[in-house]
Amino acid sequence: MESTSVRIAIDAMGGDHAPDEIVAGALRARDELDIEILLVGDPDRIRQALGSQENTPRLEIIAAEEVIEMGEEPISALRRKPNASINVTMNLVKRKQADAVVSAGHSGAAMASALLRLGRLRGIDRPAIGAVFPTVIAGQSVLILDVGANVDCRPKYLEQFATMGSIYSHSVLGVERPKVGLLNIGEEACKGNDLALNTYPLLAQNSQIHFVGNAEGRDVLSGQFDVIVCDGFSGNVLLKFAEAVGESVLQIFREELPRGTHGKVGTAFLRPNLKRIKQRIDHAEHGGGLLLGVNGVCIISHGSSQAPSIFNAIRLAKEGVDKRVSDQIRACYQQNVTAVAAGE
Amino acid sequence: MESTSVRIAIDAMGGDHAPDEIVAGALRARDELDIEILLVGDPDRIRQALGSQENTPRLEIIAAEEVIEMGEEPISALRRKPNASINVTMNLVKRKQADAVVSAGHSGAAMASALLRLGRLRGIDRPAIGAVFPTVIAGQSVLILDVGANVDCRPKYLEQFATMGSIYSHSVLGVERPKVGLLNIGEEACKGNDLALNTYPLLAQNSQIHFVGNAEGRDVLSGQFDVIVCDGFSGNVLLKFAEAVGESVLQIFREELPRGTHGKVGTAFLRPNLKRIKQRIDHAEHGGGLLLGVNGVCIISHGSSQAPSIFNAIRLAKEGVDKRVSDQIRACYQQNVTAVAAGE
Repeated sequence: MESTSVRIAIDAMGGDHAPDEIVAGALRARDELDIEILLVGDPDRIRQALGSQENTPRLEIIAAEEVIEMGEEPISALRRKPNASINVTMNLVKRKQADAVVSAGHSGAAMASALLRLGRLRGIDRPAIGAVFPTVIAGQSVLILDVGANVDCRPKYLEQFATMGSIYSHSVLGVERPKVGLLNIGEEACKGNDLALNTYPLLAQNSQIHFVGNAEGRDVLSGQFDVIVCDGFSGNVLLKFAEAVGESVLQIFREELPRGTHGKVGTAFLRPNLKRIKQRIDHAEHGGGLLLGVNGVCIISHGSSQAPSIFNAIRLAKEGVDKRVSDQIRACYQQNVTAVAAGE
Repeated sequence: MESTSVRIAIDAMGGDHAPDEIVAGALRARDELDIEILLVGDPDRIRQALGSQENTPRLEIIAAEEVIEMGEEPISALRRKPNASINVTMNLVKRKQADAVVSAGHSGAAMASALLRLGRLRGIDRPAIGAVFPTVIAGQSVLILDVGANVDCRPKYLEQFATMGSIYSHSVLGVERPKVGLLNIGEEACKGNDLALNTYPLLAQNSQIHFVGNAEGRDVLSGQFDVIVCDGFSGNVLLKFAEAVGESVLQIFREELPRGTHGKVGTAFLRPNLKRIKQRIDHAEHGGGLLLGVNGVCIISHGSSQAPSIFNAIRLAKEGVDKRVSDQIRACYQQNVTAVAAGE
């Protein structure tokens, strides 16, 4: 193996389509992104999924005997199954044998395993899951966090989400000066629930981020914001609603467009354009959630992920490593600690 | 005036397109729904909007000197302007001179005015705003509440929302046995934030409603639920996101569909089908929010409402009156009080 390329550890047993689709996405990522892949799980099943690719370069199989199933309570399951694939995958990063983790398995278990094995970054009370949404402006996206790690939040958690989100948006998504919004029910500072009301002044006073105000539901996809922070309950509802609504709208189009003779003719003419629309709307193109605030790069993909989503998740993981996101978050809070120590 | 027809009081000064679009929608409702309309506001401006319709039947102009502007803090503005159009409109219902209120003005002011003038129904701690969303199943909708009246909620409020929503869904939307869901981040009873965790058992034990479990963001538009309850923060974010996402998707289609020669030809063929799709997706077709739990029928429309939305809002108001929604909610809690008094 080349020691200079990025090494991504992938939980090959996690997700509805594991291991076949996971392995397929990983192989494509290895070839197109010039990385090393470490496939963690049942060696026999992984070999079967690899087929003729078994003995090819920049690929390693790491045995893990157990799997955390979707219905299991994460913390107790992780303790009961120390050799579960997600634990083994996280350990590879902990021991510096890999640079990043990708998992499409039980997301609660992935998060708990990351917390237990990798630990939190100093200065971060609660790691958050970020999700990248497309906006109405082609090529421009918005990072929303938290989308499910912390269902009940304190204002300072949201402030930390804003800092981490800004660093990610700048470094990985390439936004020069990310505009941060607070998810809320009105534009004015006086609007909101207790959490939003108490978070607003923290964001407004934080000079490390570029806070531009409240983001209402209607603003989420407008492209006016690069980072939007919220509690994990609202964020999760929004994420799952957004994923489904894209699919729902496409379904309505599939039903209504080809109605009648004119409809069938018109639809035939539009096939390439409809494909492009599907790509712009489809969430699967966007990879997965990023776990920000832990000591390492972790991408938590959707349980329903197929090869293209896994490929995108691995691409995200590689970018997180290349751009040293965790180091930047660490440095940001290290500065604060130094500043406080110096009496600034 | 015929004393038997339903009388709807309309705040003619409320909303971005007041009074012209409000008056236009009201006139159409009068003609098509066979109701009486009471237009409240500046008589000169209302007369101007009415034009040749000024002296036609089943129409009355009620003078109100002031208007609550969109930026004003509702409670103090309502006190400072007792003769504001929204106050005068509410008073008509309070004094039984009208059966229902429709307003597209400042929604916080409309809600506060309804609370102050009409009062809460006995048994209801917090009135809620319900919004009817289309689902992926044509002709089937889902009622979501609260979408903004109560940003911080207690479990018992959500339980009351479930009762009120079930009554509305059954009586007005015609659902035989409305399936109630709790907005949450997972299917299992053990998932959720503090509010959801503590609300779940209340809903599960309530024999007056048909609780079928948690509704995740992805289930909202699935048609699996007829009523979904949530705090007003999450609900408001969802409502505004849903409105915008429909519009965003239509915008993407408008950009992408006619691309290239084939695109232009295909789009021309599809014009009638695209119109039908817009109708299925467009939120404006669905009228407005219902304020449930106050002593009277109140529809709170979008500030951006134009005549078609106002027409639909008035139709909703008429149905609320015809189906005696407030009486049914009152009766439901009266029964409870009687049962408790009888030691059941």
